[in-house]
Amino acid sequence: MKNPPTKNDIELAHQNIKPYIHKTPILTSESINKIFNTQLFFKCENFQKAGAFKMRGATNAILSLSEDELKNGVATHSSGNHAGALALAANKLGVPSYIAMPENAPEVKINAVKGYGGNVTFCKPTLSDREKTLDEIVKKTSATFIHPYDDYRIITGQATCAKEIYEELSNLDYLIAPVGGGGLMSGSILATKYFSASTKVIGAEPIGADDAFRSIRDGEIYPSVNPQTIADGLLTSLSKKTFGIIKEGIDRIITVEEESILSAMYLIWERMKILIEPSSATVLAVVMENPELFTNKRVALILSGGNISLLVRDK
Amino acid sequence: MKNPPTKNDIELAHQNIKPYIHKTPILTSESINKIFNTQLFFKCENFQKAGAFKMRGATNAILSLSEDELKNGVATHSSGNHAGALALAANKLGVPSYIAMPENAPEVKINAVKGYGGNVTFCKPTLSDREKTLDEIVKKTSATFIHPYDDYRIITGQATCAKEIYEELSNLDYLIAPVGGGGLMSGSILATKYFSASTKVIGAEPIGADDAFRSIRDGEIYPSVNPQTIADGLLTSLSKKTFGIIKEGIDRIITVEEESILSAMYLIWERMKILIEPSSATVLAVVMENPELFTNKRVALILSGGNISLLVRDK
Repeated sequence: MKNPPTKNDIELAHQNIKPYIHKTPILTSESINKIFNTQLFFKCENFQKAGAFKMRGATNAILSLSEDELKNGVATHSSGNHAGALALAANKLGVPSYIAMPENAPEVKINAVKGYGGNVTFCKPTLSDREKTLDEIVKKTSATFIHPYDDYRIITGQATCAKEIYEELSNLDYLIAPVGGGGLMSGSILATKYFSASTKVIGAEPIGADDAFRSIRDGEIYPSVNPQTIADGLLTSLSKKTFGIIKEGIDRIITVEEESILSAMYLIWERMKILIEPSSATVLAVVMENPELFTNKRVALILSGGNISLLVRDK
Repeated sequence: MKNPPTKNDIELAHQNIKPYIHKTPILTSESINKIFNTQLFFKCENFQKAGAFKMRGATNAILSLSEDELKNGVATHSSGNHAGALALAANKLGVPSYIAMPENAPEVKINAVKGYGGNVTFCKPTLSDREKTLDEIVKKTSATFIHPYDDYRIITGQATCAKEIYEELSNLDYLIAPVGGGGLMSGSILATKYFSASTKVIGAEPIGADDAFRSIRDGEIYPSVNPQTIADGLLTSLSKKTFGIIKEGIDRIITVEEESILSAMYLIWERMKILIEPSSATVLAVVMENPELFTNKRVALILSGGNISLLVRDK
């Protein structure tokens, strides 16, 4: 796929991946709406298969492969949700998956990938060793490398999340989604352009990992250097493909404090009784820090995932 | 209400309380089903208003009062979910509520009751001081005392939870619900008798608070003396009204270890991404400890509430 997806590409992808993903619910909370005097609609990708929106893109990417490519399977390097999603999507589609994981990845993530049938190869927790290990895997298996976001097939899959929101809700003033590598944000921007053009798209980013904010402001991609945030899904840098789409279509990126991310996460846990990971909480943190912007507005927020390590577990 | 509710009583109550409660979703988890080789249907009362099934009974009890009684409001003593539910139900119906709460009740529960507009009076954390304080409140305000479970209006309200399950699912082999004071269990038994007579009802009880198990086994009500369990909603004893219904209609009570309750709670958090309190986890703990009983069965489980204090919050 050489160009950003068209409306038709996204519609087709949605049809194709539907049997393999959940149509996740959109929840509301009367008490949270009251606090901020607004109408919030939470799209619950924490309930998605493998616990995050990543399942959409991973499934679409694998379904885009030729029969020959499918035989050799797929590969990636990841310590996070893309690894689990790719392993599960491959498993459901009956193809092998090979994941290079840093040896210090959380045990719960490693077990998830293995539980989904992924073949795990451990590497050192540096980008260079991850890439080297991945190269060796690809050489040995001829598997197709699926990048977590710098790939229009992935972006097309992630776009189906916002598409589902617009199928269910109209007259939304804002859509807020987190920005990490930009795959979800790119898909959200394109889906908004095609299915709800009057809605403004806002990116949520931790202030300690604000490379996307600075990149969009200055018009050039800054790498994410030594990011400091509890939102472990948002440590990555934008890529050429995601930067291009986001620069073009985003209303603005709003950065949020760590304290707001935590408060927002606990508020969602407490009031909505659903588990989300810190990256997901950035979207409510944006509302928390800027309530005046959203007063009496209709706002969709993407809760991107629910894969949090519960510390109590391993005691 | 002098007698246990009839089918018609429960249907009427359900109509009456519908505008004030959530029809909670029934969720399934492919991965948990695989682990136990069974089909589990989780009725999510953790998503209920005020975070627990108690809202059903409290609302029904208040709606059963006369106009004169309504003016003076309602009162109870409770450190748990009944307090919050009664305060919120009273608030929604525009009547005052007076709650005697032990001074050592968790701050999060006290704040919830106050947030719902309840008038809190603190007392010492002994049953005798709770009752004395309640008596004083009732004398002063003429409010109607609403017992958390020894009250057929409450039991009728709690019965609507299982009724909703049977409206959505048929051919269930088992319904599992936790047993504390027995209000939810009594309602579940009656709803099963009226709406799904072939389903067997199983009670889940922590082994460290097994007074209901022993009471039903021996045919007499044992008080819950010094119960030891993390399931803080299940510390209370059966009452005359709940004992009568449970003795008559339950298939069996199964006790579970603390370790199973914790494992079940973490499994639900992790796989289903929903927050439940430990009392709710007892139902899955029953399946965990007795998988052979439920192999290839269709089993409904009531997740009774989601009001857990998240320790991280107050750091």
